[in-house]
Amino acid sequence: MQKLTFEISMSLDGLIAGPNPSLENPLGEGGEQLHEWGVRLAAWREAHGLAGGERNADSSLMEESQARAGAVVMGRKMFSGGEGPWDQDPNADGWWGEEPPFRVPVFVLTHHERDPVAKEGGTTFVFVTDGPETALQQAREAAGDKDVAIGGGADVARQYLSAGLLDELLIHLIPVFLGGGVRLFEPLESGGVELEQTQAIESPSGVAHLTYRVVK
Amino acid sequence: MQKLTFEISMSLDGLIAGPNPSLENPLGEGGEQLHEWGVRLAAWREAHGLAGGERNADSSLMEESQARAGAVVMGRKMFSGGEGPWDQDPNADGWWGEEPPFRVPVFVLTHHERDPVAKEGGTTFVFVTDGPETALQQAREAAGDKDVAIGGGADVARQYLSAGLLDELLIHLIPVFLGGGVRLFEPLESGGVELEQTQAIESPSGVAHLTYRVVK
Repeated sequence: MQKLTFEISMSLDGLIAGPNPSLENPLGEGGEQLHEWGVRLAAWREAHGLAGGERNADSSLMEESQARAGAVVMGRKMFSGGEGPWDQDPNADGWWGEEPPFRVPVFVLTHHERDPVAKEGGTTFVFVTDGPETALQQAREAAGDKDVAIGGGADVARQYLSAGLLDELLIHLIPVFLGGGVRLFEPLESGGVELEQTQAIESPSGVAHLTYRVVK
Repeated sequence: MQKLTFEISMSLDGLIAGPNPSLENPLGEGGEQLHEWGVRLAAWREAHGLAGGERNADSSLMEESQARAGAVVMGRKMFSGGEGPWDQDPNADGWWGEEPPFRVPVFVLTHHERDPVAKEGGTTFVFVTDGPETALQQAREAAGDKDVAIGGGADVARQYLSAGLLDELLIHLIPVFLGGGVRLFEPLESGGVELEQTQAIESPSGVAHLTYRVVK
């Protein structure tokens, strides 16, 4: 059965980006530590058009997760490069370069109508102006028998979670304290959702991969 | 080598107690969900003078953790029953009953001098008025070749963590959202500490037991 999934790297103090994000450092101070386990993997490098990289249990996990995503839904800031002065142009081309790593249709939530943009390697950005449920519907159709992945940001993921639409949450829990920044779960929004842990994996790179099913 | 350890159950949204704690419900709304995995175990029941309970991988983990604690350090609110109107009497006897589950010397941080109180089953509460380092020193001596456990609250644990005195952190990560309450890690205090994940265990009761070494 087709699922709506969200995966993200979170610090032990619950943050997904560090303090003071900027154009040069969109993950905030220290935020790159959340992704170190991933960017050195063969699976990550291949998606980004790069050769080499480590092959281990983490890499298999990432390959699996890439293989089952048939479409992506993301917020506009995730498309265009975070929140900040560079996020003012509704026609900005985003920060994903000529060959984005998704390699499937990506449905971008926005208030600005715009024609789809096809990139190299299979990624097409489709702009959806009539809300997250419509974007999800279009993504579901595009994904066929594969899953739909939420590409972020955290606010978009929380929106689908609160609406009871998310099926699976995969948290890569990283043993760092960022000491400030963007929190994944804003307490008041996340109450009332029931989860069941379906898997907890100790990674060779010293992080924990925690999979939760949202109980409907 | 003797270690200073802290273990605690935390919700996925980073909380260790729910909203609106009271004398009747010191863990706050929904907070009891954090401890369900533990209170049904034989190891927990035995420490609390009760028969029966489940014996599984969780129970072994808890037994191990109990066996290596030779002394405990805790804050005064943890001794006397949380923050609230019942916390006004410096001579209050606490909420641990006649046979507290610690069964080792417990050093209570307080501003009020007071004679030690010996309870049944091996627990003696010793009141320390000259600060957390002195309390730790006394607990270290009492523990002999065993470890010293921080009994809470979270503010006391963060104080030892920030001072570079904590050696090991064991988080039982529970797949619930409490949606508000007491946060384990206050971002601004926890920056600058380096951790290494030493173990991640998938529990039979659907929680994750995550052990971290504090890198000195």
